[in-house]
Amino acid sequence: MKIAIIGGGSVGLLCAYYLSLDHDVTVVTRRQEQAAAIQSEGIRLYKGGEEFSADCSADTRINSDFDLLVVTVKQHQLQSVFPSLERIRKTNILFLQNGMGHIHNLKDWHVGHSIYVGIVEHGAVRKSDTAVDHTGLGAIKWSAFDAESDRLNILFQHNHSDFPICYETDWYRLLTGKLIVNACINPLTALLQVKNGDLLTTPAYLAFMKLVFQEACRILRLENEEEAWERVQAVCRLTKENRSSMLVDVIEGRQTEADAIIGYLLKEASLHGIDAVHLAFLYGSIKALERNTNKVF
Amino acid sequence: MKIAIIGGGSVGLLCAYYLSLDHDVTVVTRRQEQAAAIQSEGIRLYKGGEEFSADCSADTRINSDFDLLVVTVKQHQLQSVFPSLERIRKTNILFLQNGMGHIHNLKDWHVGHSIYVGIVEHGAVRKSDTAVDHTGLGAIKWSAFDAESDRLNILFQHNHSDFPICYETDWYRLLTGKLIVNACINPLTALLQVKNGDLLTTPAYLAFMKLVFQEACRILRLENEEEAWERVQAVCRLTKENRSSMLVDVIEGRQTEADAIIGYLLKEASLHGIDAVHLAFLYGSIKALERNTNKVF
Repeated sequence: MKIAIIGGGSVGLLCAYYLSLDHDVTVVTRRQEQAAAIQSEGIRLYKGGEEFSADCSADTRINSDFDLLVVTVKQHQLQSVFPSLERIRKTNILFLQNGMGHIHNLKDWHVGHSIYVGIVEHGAVRKSDTAVDHTGLGAIKWSAFDAESDRLNILFQHNHSDFPICYETDWYRLLTGKLIVNACINPLTALLQVKNGDLLTTPAYLAFMKLVFQEACRILRLENEEEAWERVQAVCRLTKENRSSMLVDVIEGRQTEADAIIGYLLKEASLHGIDAVHLAFLYGSIKALERNTNKVF
Repeated sequence: MKIAIIGGGSVGLLCAYYLSLDHDVTVVTRRQEQAAAIQSEGIRLYKGGEEFSADCSADTRINSDFDLLVVTVKQHQLQSVFPSLERIRKTNILFLQNGMGHIHNLKDWHVGHSIYVGIVEHGAVRKSDTAVDHTGLGAIKWSAFDAESDRLNILFQHNHSDFPICYETDWYRLLTGKLIVNACINPLTALLQVKNGDLLTTPAYLAFMKLVFQEACRILRLENEEEAWERVQAVCRLTKENRSSMLVDVIEGRQTEADAIIGYLLKEASLHGIDAVHLAFLYGSIKALERNTNKVF
């Protein structure tokens, strides 16, 4: 099966390594330099102190040869990928972005491709243009967004036990389930500059997170609030020593995923006339922090 | 009358200029360099495009010669001033700090001085070690904290029309009236990096500020909430183009007055078992911003 991975970040390299064990994989990168390195060296994966490697093709362009494209670039980089995807023949495309900002784009994107969306629950850190550290074993969960699900089910048979690929029936439930966790944990840890576990151990922070949670729940119309709140707290506990991706982005002066995570919620709140006072404040503060870190202010 | 102004910042230089028109004023500075400059050049004041000057003494030590000391250093610098004040003979001391963090200190400070507290409603920007720009005409309002008020009333007769000094009967009412305004405007503008007026024009920010206001009101046991909320909004309107002092401190990488303003409220909340979820979050976020700006994190 011919698969293209769009994006050579941590998730892109992780997917490329594991999928190349069963499929013919090409990594499509923005930089020629990275494509050349992957083409000549393949991809290395570190896991539990061991090193593994896999051969991979690489390119800087997307062509029409693939049975499946896996889009792993961040949500704010999607706009530069869409035009290329509109030029190729109809195929299967799986979007693996954090947050749900891309959902508003995909709803308006009528191109005839079979579209799937998914979430990544692995921990992965890119070490170089060709190497990735698989720091946390998890899963990829996917669902049909605008497609027949059985087509991709066939593609994803026989995958590696450290890289399970799980089908879920309801894309909205799948994505909102992760979004509510990210919306609660990421902006707060980024603004307070604390580890995930500190949101549980400082009572005022936990109470503030609950206010954010309630706002996000109303916007997403989640069915089982109590279960979702338990899950938010469970993730804080399980990742208590971790710095959230948004905190790391802020520290390293990178653009955060505030638009993908909070931006989506604010847009939905505005569409349905729902109050989002805490989320609007968090969004404004994270955006100010991005400007400040980048010395534009 | 012999008056010492402790601190050569914007408020110190402003007080020194105006009080020296009627009194024998000495500015006490931390740096020898600034004391020498004031001693030789006097103080220049800019106002409405004009320049004024006044002769002033200066020193780096506080001695026992003064009828009144006006302490103008910031609240977080007070700890280095207290020991000197404990060594001199009993006199009148007026504390002009922002916020109320120093109130907890003063309550435990039993030294026999006649203690007064006040607020500064002037706009002033220090231009150099000896020059200050009087950017906004206002008033100094003061009240007896642990003293007979009539003693200072006599000292403050005959002052300049651009520098009114007004007596208020209730120090708690005076200080909390300013604190509630600072607590609402300063942390929010610093985190969102917006001008004061933007807190009114963005509905979600106004609603968030209201939540902060309600928390602070409960902690301070303010009598007339509605009037106080009107005043907060009036200050936002009147200073709509201004950047709050906390925002400027954050931008310039200085320590903010978060302890003096929010720290006092959190301590009071904790003493009386009152929830302060929003204030605790704002405090944590401002402190993180201070660390971040100072590159300690």
